[in-house]
Amino acid sequence: MPLRDPVLYPPFNVVRVSHVEYGATDLEHSKAYWVDTLGFVLTEQTADALYLRGLEERNHHSVVLRKSTDPHAASLGFKVYSEADLDIACRHFSELGLSPEWTRKPFQGRTLSVRDPVGTPLEFYFEMAQVESRLRRYGDYKGARIQRIDHVNCFSPDLQQSHDFYNAIGFRTSEYTAAEGTDDLWAVWMHRKGNVHDMALTNGRGPRLHHVGVWVPGVLDIIHVCDVLATTGWLHSMERGPGRHGISNAFFLYLRDPDGHRIELFNSDYLTCDPDHAPLRWDLRDARRQTLWGARAPKSWFEEGSLFPGAVLADSVFTSGEPIVAP
Amino acid sequence: MPLRDPVLYPPFNVVRVSHVEYGATDLEHSKAYWVDTLGFVLTEQTADALYLRGLEERNHHSVVLRKSTDPHAASLGFKVYSEADLDIACRHFSELGLSPEWTRKPFQGRTLSVRDPVGTPLEFYFEMAQVESRLRRYGDYKGARIQRIDHVNCFSPDLQQSHDFYNAIGFRTSEYTAAEGTDDLWAVWMHRKGNVHDMALTNGRGPRLHHVGVWVPGVLDIIHVCDVLATTGWLHSMERGPGRHGISNAFFLYLRDPDGHRIELFNSDYLTCDPDHAPLRWDLRDARRQTLWGARAPKSWFEEGSLFPGAVLADSVFTSGEPIVAP
Amino acid sequence: MPLRDPVLYPPFNVVRVSHVEYGATDLEHSKAYWVDTLGFVLTEQTADALYLRGLEERNHHSVVLRKSTDPHAASLGFKVYSEADLDIACRHFSELGLSPEWTRKPFQGRTLSVRDPVGTPLEFYFEMAQVESRLRRYGDYKGARIQRIDHVNCFSPDLQQSHDFYNAIGFRTSEYTAAEGTDDLWAVWMHRKGNVHDMALTNGRGPRLHHVGVWVPGVLDIIHVCDVLATTGWLHSMERGPGRHGISNAFFLYLRDPDGHRIELFNSDYLTCDPDHAPLRWDLRDARRQTLWGARAPKSWFEEGSLFPGAVLADSVFTSGEPIVAP
Amino acid sequence: MPLRDPVLYPPFNVVRVSHVEYGATDLEHSKAYWVDTLGFVLTEQTADALYLRGLEERNHHSVVLRKSTDPHAASLGFKVYSEADLDIACRHFSELGLSPEWTRKPFQGRTLSVRDPVGTPLEFYFEMAQVESRLRRYGDYKGARIQRIDHVNCFSPDLQQSHDFYNAIGFRTSEYTAAEGTDDLWAVWMHRKGNVHDMALTNGRGPRLHHVGVWVPGVLDIIHVCDVLATTGWLHSMERGPGRHGISNAFFLYLRDPDGHRIELFNSDYLTCDPDHAPLRWDLRDARRQTLWGARAPKSWFEEGSLFPGAVLADSVFTSGEPIVAP
Repeated sequence: MPLRDPVLYPPFNVVRVSHVEYGATDLEHSKAYWVDTLGFVLTEQTADALYLRGLEERNHHSVVLRKSTDPHAASLGFKVYSEADLDIACRHFSELGLSPEWTRKPFQGRTLSVRDPVGTPLEFYFEMAQVESRLRRYGDYKGARIQRIDHVNCFSPDLQQSHDFYNAIGFRTSEYTAAEGTDDLWAVWMHRKGNVHDMALTNGRGPRLHHVGVWVPGVLDIIHVCDVLATTGWLHSMERGPGRHGISNAFFLYLRDPDGHRIELFNSDYLTCDPDHAPLRWDLRDARRQTLWGARAPKSWFEEGSLFPGAVLADSVFTSGEPIVAP
Repeated sequence: MPLRDPVLYPPFNVVRVSHVEYGATDLEHSKAYWVDTLGFVLTEQTADALYLRGLEERNHHSVVLRKSTDPHAASLGFKVYSEADLDIACRHFSELGLSPEWTRKPFQGRTLSVRDPVGTPLEFYFEMAQVESRLRRYGDYKGARIQRIDHVNCFSPDLQQSHDFYNAIGFRTSEYTAAEGTDDLWAVWMHRKGNVHDMALTNGRGPRLHHVGVWVPGVLDIIHVCDVLATTGWLHSMERGPGRHGISNAFFLYLRDPDGHRIELFNSDYLTCDPDHAPLRWDLRDARRQTLWGARAPKSWFEEGSLFPGAVLADSVFTSGEPIVAP
Repeated sequence: MPLRDPVLYPPFNVVRVSHVEYGATDLEHSKAYWVDTLGFVLTEQTADALYLRGLEERNHHSVVLRKSTDPHAASLGFKVYSEADLDIACRHFSELGLSPEWTRKPFQGRTLSVRDPVGTPLEFYFEMAQVESRLRRYGDYKGARIQRIDHVNCFSPDLQQSHDFYNAIGFRTSEYTAAEGTDDLWAVWMHRKGNVHDMALTNGRGPRLHHVGVWVPGVLDIIHVCDVLATTGWLHSMERGPGRHGISNAFFLYLRDPDGHRIELFNSDYLTCDPDHAPLRWDLRDARRQTLWGARAPKSWFEEGSLFPGAVLADSVFTSGEPIVAP
Repeated sequence: MPLRDPVLYPPFNVVRVSHVEYGATDLEHSKAYWVDTLGFVLTEQTADALYLRGLEERNHHSVVLRKSTDPHAASLGFKVYSEADLDIACRHFSELGLSPEWTRKPFQGRTLSVRDPVGTPLEFYFEMAQVESRLRRYGDYKGARIQRIDHVNCFSPDLQQSHDFYNAIGFRTSEYTAAEGTDDLWAVWMHRKGNVHDMALTNGRGPRLHHVGVWVPGVLDIIHVCDVLATTGWLHSMERGPGRHGISNAFFLYLRDPDGHRIELFNSDYLTCDPDHAPLRWDLRDARRQTLWGARAPKSWFEEGSLFPGAVLADSVFTSGEPIVAP
């Protein structure tokens, strides 16, 4: 059975996905996009990095853009519930043969780095420097009024294996796509914090990062930033949308930053914290799961993603016999 | 010069476009779409027709759907300022050799029917039965909360000739598209009531009606009706959008009713009543005029329209040498 | 009868109210409010004045704030249809014994200054310097995204006399309040441009300017500026609202600028250009006309306004026997 | 110290507040308000009760209105993580001397009833009948588009005692109000599900239920329902707002149902699931905590609430020396 029962008492407690670190080739250009145009808050700029957060966030950063000669996704960050959870996590990953390592990252406490079974670089930590929430500083709102990080979405070449890894550490499935007449998982949306997702997994050549998803306070904030992007020289950064996903019910807009990193601005999900909240199944042939309104996504949206350095890329093992058509 | 100076003192006073009459093949099906789904108010249903209006409207109807064996657009209705204007209009059209005729239409006073030089059937009248505005009956709001008719958009095979006809009776140009390096008109947006348009003219095989445009109170009313259409069996009726036009600044959604008649729901235009309000020129090669956000319109949007019975269709005489590519 | 039939063919053609000039005591403080906080566009700053406009406006300014030792409203500006209309207006006002005078104002052509019968200073002109519309420069949008001037609202000590003056020059009544069981006008909303109002008149000690009304593109722009005002030190400038008027159906917010000048931000009116659009009567006892949702306006809103220098203040002649209670 | 450290590992796992049961005197009248006007979904109507839920909810109900000769609040329902948690809860409450009892409720599994230390009737359960989410049935959306229950707010006569009870079972404080210069708690907002609150406690004569809070998808859904309420005979049910709370950042509207039960419609909170998310302190003298925009709440909002039958009412023991002025 492709969807296992959710693990009621996982070995350690992951609170949520909390940050993503990217390699960026031109920090000033990236700042013009993420901060001046989209409306991320610049917490701190160092010699080699931009640390960004959303308006409500108290964690020092939810996005790091670090100067690099090539664009890439460096790692996905997860906050755990306590320092003790880190030690349990270390043992858990060691037992899986995943070779976790203790590392140090700026502005954050003891950090456990590990790659998931398909090679996605993850980091787990408990402590991050806390800064002021700007939620009530409305005079600072601009662009799309980015409020907080919500989730990451990754390509996996072996979705079942990826699902099982996250399931075993307490990620529950809110929605999933399966090939018609089979139980073969094509994509899964998994969460820890009680909404639709912290981690979504899509079948495809990987591991690669498909996008980081950030919450904005209203649908009109997305409409407005479309108008801003289209009239300030960033029209080319609009890849898909705005539109409504069937899956997750999200009102979405997909963007590509100056290095091609994909960002989803979204609004409108729902509560999934009940332990008896049953996963919602979508059939691979149901076009409404991708977009309720019928507009097709561009080829780039299905095919392109940010590379994780050091990971070995593999093609999908998906064997349902279904051609992986543009959904 | 393709754009003539606006006629400061036209021979008679057209107030605005006020209604459109269609031939519809199945009134119950049409009612399910226009009334139950989009949110038009059903003023009156007779044995052979539905009379619809928007929530704020006091005119008895702004859309008539009359039972017919074939779908078509029967006529475009314009309200004039007084009964006396009708007599002057009759003389004006007679002098142009257009053979105006006095007719009677239900719920409306003395009516002057005439075809414009390319064959578009028009009717002019002063008096229509008045009904209650439902603007403050918020409990009746539903669907897209259609508020009022705003404009019609027609294909013309001879845009210069069409422009000159409407210009001569006081329609002023707010925006227009011309082929690069020429003054050849490709499309014009003309108004009487002081916003972007009452009558828009697009170069193409005609005469045909491209769409009727109706005003909705907010952008989110359009987003909501997208969600409603997509989940109540009307997904196929969504032809284009939602999106933002460069021209007119309208936030738009184009729909096709059960007979294929095109409806534009829109919000966000601007005031044009100043006599020195200069027309805004768009170059035919500027893709932002059609849609600020870059999504292409489908082929059907460029090619299809409602036929006017009795009109002789002609291909466009547009001779700029520009291929009429999807803009 | 208090409401006269609308004058179908007025002696000259007023297009709309187009600007207001104020005396302001501290231009930098005013700029911080009108431009930096509310989002007016600063067209030009001279040694002694700020010239402001809304995002869509092409007229050089719709608000002038001129350095003054005392706050006051200097004049209300109306655009006419042609230079010839100015000459007819001059004769019309002379015949009424109102002593019109030709004056020159910066950035505007030949200007006719006159006081209406109760002393309100008006100026009529045809030509004003034209500037670029910023409607499509979305990157410049801020604050409440002020789009254009819409109307002015004045206290008149003799409402019938004021109404008759504007009626005679073509202003049509869209809505009015009358004392119960009488036809005594208590307030009138009159327009030229085809929406609810260019000039509203309220019974009270006058002449004084109650407020200038400016159009914003959406209800959420008003909600957002409330949040901004409340968190950037301008909480005290919020006088009334947000709320919904019964009269005009406007979604409103009333503000007081640093000199106490009242500004209404509003959205949601309707079309009134039909010559047979019958005025809507509200009874003075109907509390919903002031605010549909029931919240009472503060005393200041009923009692305070900007003085017109040189005008002789008079108490209201309203004689219906109704106490002028807070509606 | 009034705010204890959050209990990292509570004795049992409460997932969230999930439902409220009321006594209602006229079910048809209640249905007209909750279902037809506000837009709750009627899951089931039995001979003596209405079972309601929000559009996204899969639990059978989040509000029960049971026929009663007097209006009252019967109990507050909390979902726990597993059946085993119920047994632990039973022991925990027994040890506190609170006399928990096993009861049966329709549509829900084994239920543990208990009163908190000040007498508030609570029920804990794991299993409830599951029904279809209507989140994607947009054609069913109406009124304020109620999406889900979010929180309850109760008056407590002994806030410190109440806080300590909920703190001990894992409720974390997101925000709180304390008297100036003291650490005396005046009000606390506590959560389990990771947003601002599941349970808010306000100092005052109690125990009484102040309100149930329900989430709506957007600010404009609240504005629209204001217009609907004001024009469909329910104006008197609008008690306070719309407005913005400083505390919680909620955009709010407070309503009173036909029996006087208070409902808060709200939008716009934020994520609090991080274990190091520090509580936000508000000073009792800071008027912005109650309403950012400055409008005062009516006396009824501070003083009135729904009674819990069988509870002994007591006055507040608040001893800060501060008069409990309207905040």
